[in-house]
Amino acid sequence: MADYRAPTRDMRFILNEVLDAARIRALPGFDEYEPDTVDAILEEAGRFAGSVLAPLNRVGDTEGATWSPEGVAAAPGFGDAYRQYVEAGWNGLTGSPDHGGMGMPRVLGSVATEMWNAANMSFALCPLLTASAVEALSHHGSDEQKARYLEKLVSGEWTGCMDLTEPQAGSDLAAVRTRAQADGDAYRLFGQKIYITWGEHDVADNIIHLVLARLPDAPAGVKGISLFLVPKFILDDAGGPGARNDMRCASIEHKLGIHASPTCTITYGEEGDGALGYLVGEENRGLACMFTMMNAARHKMGLQALGVADRAYQAALTYARDRQQGGTAIVEHADVKRMLMTMRSQIDVLRALCLDTASQMDVAESSDDAAERKTAQARVDVLIPIVKGWGTELGVELTNTGVQIHGGMGFVEETGAAQYLRDARIAPIYEGTNGIQAIDLVGRKLLRDQGSAMKALIADMRATADGTAPGANAHPGLAAALDLFEQATDTLIAGGQDVAMANAFNYMMLAGYVVGAWYAARIADVARVALDGETDETDFYQARQASARFYIRQILPKARGYAAMVAGGPDAVDMVDAARHL
Amino acid sequence: MADYRAPTRDMRFILNEVLDAARIRALPGFDEYEPDTVDAILEEAGRFAGSVLAPLNRVGDTEGATWSPEGVAAAPGFGDAYRQYVEAGWNGLTGSPDHGGMGMPRVLGSVATEMWNAANMSFALCPLLTASAVEALSHHGSDEQKARYLEKLVSGEWTGCMDLTEPQAGSDLAAVRTRAQADGDAYRLFGQKIYITWGEHDVADNIIHLVLARLPDAPAGVKGISLFLVPKFILDDAGGPGARNDMRCASIEHKLGIHASPTCTITYGEEGDGALGYLVGEENRGLACMFTMMNAARHKMGLQALGVADRAYQAALTYARDRQQGGTAIVEHADVKRMLMTMRSQIDVLRALCLDTASQMDVAESSDDAAERKTAQARVDVLIPIVKGWGTELGVELTNTGVQIHGGMGFVEETGAAQYLRDARIAPIYEGTNGIQAIDLVGRKLLRDQGSAMKALIADMRATADGTAPGANAHPGLAAALDLFEQATDTLIAGGQDVAMANAFNYMMLAGYVVGAWYAARIADVARVALDGETDETDFYQARQASARFYIRQILPKARGYAAMVAGGPDAVDMVDAARHL
Repeated sequence: MADYRAPTRDMRFILNEVLDAARIRALPGFDEYEPDTVDAILEEAGRFAGSVLAPLNRVGDTEGATWSPEGVAAAPGFGDAYRQYVEAGWNGLTGSPDHGGMGMPRVLGSVATEMWNAANMSFALCPLLTASAVEALSHHGSDEQKARYLEKLVSGEWTGCMDLTEPQAGSDLAAVRTRAQADGDAYRLFGQKIYITWGEHDVADNIIHLVLARLPDAPAGVKGISLFLVPKFILDDAGGPGARNDMRCASIEHKLGIHASPTCTITYGEEGDGALGYLVGEENRGLACMFTMMNAARHKMGLQALGVADRAYQAALTYARDRQQGGTAIVEHADVKRMLMTMRSQIDVLRALCLDTASQMDVAESSDDAAERKTAQARVDVLIPIVKGWGTELGVELTNTGVQIHGGMGFVEETGAAQYLRDARIAPIYEGTNGIQAIDLVGRKLLRDQGSAMKALIADMRATADGTAPGANAHPGLAAALDLFEQATDTLIAGGQDVAMANAFNYMMLAGYVVGAWYAARIADVARVALDGETDETDFYQARQASARFYIRQILPKARGYAAMVAGGPDAVDMVDAARHL
Repeated sequence: MADYRAPTRDMRFILNEVLDAARIRALPGFDEYEPDTVDAILEEAGRFAGSVLAPLNRVGDTEGATWSPEGVAAAPGFGDAYRQYVEAGWNGLTGSPDHGGMGMPRVLGSVATEMWNAANMSFALCPLLTASAVEALSHHGSDEQKARYLEKLVSGEWTGCMDLTEPQAGSDLAAVRTRAQADGDAYRLFGQKIYITWGEHDVADNIIHLVLARLPDAPAGVKGISLFLVPKFILDDAGGPGARNDMRCASIEHKLGIHASPTCTITYGEEGDGALGYLVGEENRGLACMFTMMNAARHKMGLQALGVADRAYQAALTYARDRQQGGTAIVEHADVKRMLMTMRSQIDVLRALCLDTASQMDVAESSDDAAERKTAQARVDVLIPIVKGWGTELGVELTNTGVQIHGGMGFVEETGAAQYLRDARIAPIYEGTNGIQAIDLVGRKLLRDQGSAMKALIADMRATADGTAPGANAHPGLAAALDLFEQATDTLIAGGQDVAMANAFNYMMLAGYVVGAWYAARIADVARVALDGETDETDFYQARQASARFYIRQILPKARGYAAMVAGGPDAVDMVDAARHL
């Protein structure tokens, strides 16, 4: 299996040249986000990802996590790698300094997240879930909860997980049945949750579950769900892990991919007393607490797709350079080049999209200007379903292309190419299926504000397309795509709810390809400026130009198809009678 | 895991209503291809596929074939199922009556092949390879070879396999190194082959290998390759399996899918004497013999994709009807409907494409009119790379959509949805990767005759689009797509070799979506005529209309994207410098 080399030059290109690093550095609290520090962190993170995490990716796949009645054992080597990860301080990279974190911006944390996922997606899911728990507690936890749990979660000594799904309640959280009953200041939980990522394992001393459950007199539906903190080990008086809580992992799933990430069924209260839990935030406001974490978690799904796609690209490129057919390496064959550029060009723009979104999140959270925060948050809200939805569709497509480049070897598991596809396949499903992302984009993000945030994005993209943005050339390909996209946006806004729902997925994909073209255009502009000046990295910048050109000429055309699907109207879907036509 | 029900009504619709069954019946030798017989065969084949083969699909996946130094043991139940398959006479459905076959046309055999693959793709690969061996021997074997081997291969008592690939020679057969040296009237083979599907197993009494190898004084390259028949057991004087030949299965691959289809590495001559083999056809003409089989084998790859996609569709539909979310079954959710119709509409047109191609193969092989044979063969030559290339891309896409419809359950292996995706993933790779199919389409099939066969196809499609074909309405969506396709065709012909190679894959995909629309239009026309007349199958015909309409409105738009990629020119690929830009 090919090694993983973190693409630090590509990352710095986006962070420092395409995006405005100075703007992030100027935000309150981020004055340490400066070039030398960033470079040092990138190199060190890349080294850790490549030398510690990447070599465990295959054993994680073949051996996986294993269940026994006593609990779940992580795949071989994962416990040791996790300890190194915590000791090196990686878990606290973006954590608040108040709780021992390094306080770096999300845009930098995102680069590290890409690396962990590229190196070992199963491993990376563990800190990813811990970060969600940190978000939830930071925003909604009581002072006492913060004091007792945050430092350990920020450092990674303890891990966190999210217990949301129940067998009868997948995308529909209104159907949650797990119940909580008051017991003094605390609560006792009874019920069962499924699909809990890293819900049980042996790599850390405690596991802090955040569980959605219903109080006895709660209203029906989503307005009757509360969030509870339920530790695997109840804290003792010294604040350390004490008695085992009344909860257990009943089983783990046998899955298509991410075998080393245990996907747990957790039962609460089987022994009778109920699992001891603590209310987080207000009663019946659990869903609001969830929404706090959602943007961050969904953003990370895009990074996951990006990371795995880049790993798959590196493996495919290595294979194509080595493999001789008909007297030359296949990397020189036109169709293989096409496949490699299909991967490379979309990886470049997906990275720009993910990091730009992260930098907007930084502004939305940390700016001291309320108007700026609001504008940035509106942009984040529009981009997140595109990052998650379009990004994870690309993750599957590109890892699939990686398999194809390997020919017959791609179908043989020991090559590793197939694992990237199997791993990447989860991302369109979890953290809200891509159907849910599409509905979020057109329902919550487009129709609710009558397209104002989307139109602001379109205006920014127009400035690049027309060459009126600073440093921009005119980009006629992008301009033409924007015409189609604006038309589709108007169609959806004019059509209202039904039109929007039937067209949602195609609209989301259209948005993705067009937004991707915006980043391709910006990448091309930056590369041109660099080449016009003095640079000793001619190859690098010309490669960025070739990649952007390929995207505009060979990938962006897909937008025409999706635009035509939206224009084709929803009735092709709506008139389908599920009972008679399917 | 969902059951498999063979879609016999859909199949009869294409066989008898969309295609011209009378024309096939009128061909010499096919007078038994008449409606009652066809119906009986479809029902019986469907029953066999559903009750015998389908239930073994999952155990085939979980247990797979197993290797030991003594040989390969098929997955549990496969040996017994294979015996039933042979005893019921299914292996001989399209075999020549001269050798004990039923002599049915390919178009009917194709329907059965779809069923076997839908029920159990790993199982279906075994007779699929035997059929290739039958083709090779029928066309190129000596009378003695035919007498000794064909009857057993047609009945399925013995199986056949194709030993082509070597580690250093994947798509590049010129690099074959396995050598054969004369030994009296026979030959002795030495060397190693990989990726031999069903190259070793215990479900039949003998395995007849057709092996590409080089004679000592053979010219270099593909003009120095000969084809040899190498039996696992050398026939004794009575014509039965006798002494074990000097060849063995060194290992089988651990693969992404089709676990019950052993993918073997075979070594010849390790014991010293060499594996005894017999020359098939003339010396150094092995590649020509291979080409004989290629159309038939590549056509079956399309049927494989179709079968697995339909199985995945059935499973997804069953799940969507059962699964409740937000108070209704998810089959009523707009985005789930969209996904199901995405599968259904493409399955409908892919079946029409595969069966139409098969009927053209029947005409090309069996007509007593030489001009008709030639015209049909030209059509077959153009359609085969589309059937294989576009069809198997769809196979992966649609099984992937099947996973998505299942939500989280799609990622859990016990559901079975993931297996369909894993199994389908091989089809774009083997029997010539889809990159090879694309090169075949634009190089051998388009440029070589300056587009004359493709233009004949376009003219036929135009007649449907314009409503001038018998029974046709005008189809403006198809007409618009044909304009794009004709333009792309002219671009490739005018541009010559380099333009064609860099655009080949996108052109192939464009051709697929447009040809698919032709079948959708014809399906819609036939359904309309049926509804205009008297029918007690209103639901069925309206469903066909809904499916065709969905294809034209929501799938065909992809053609715009591919046309724009072709129009965008090859330089986006050609200007990529593999050393500096990737």
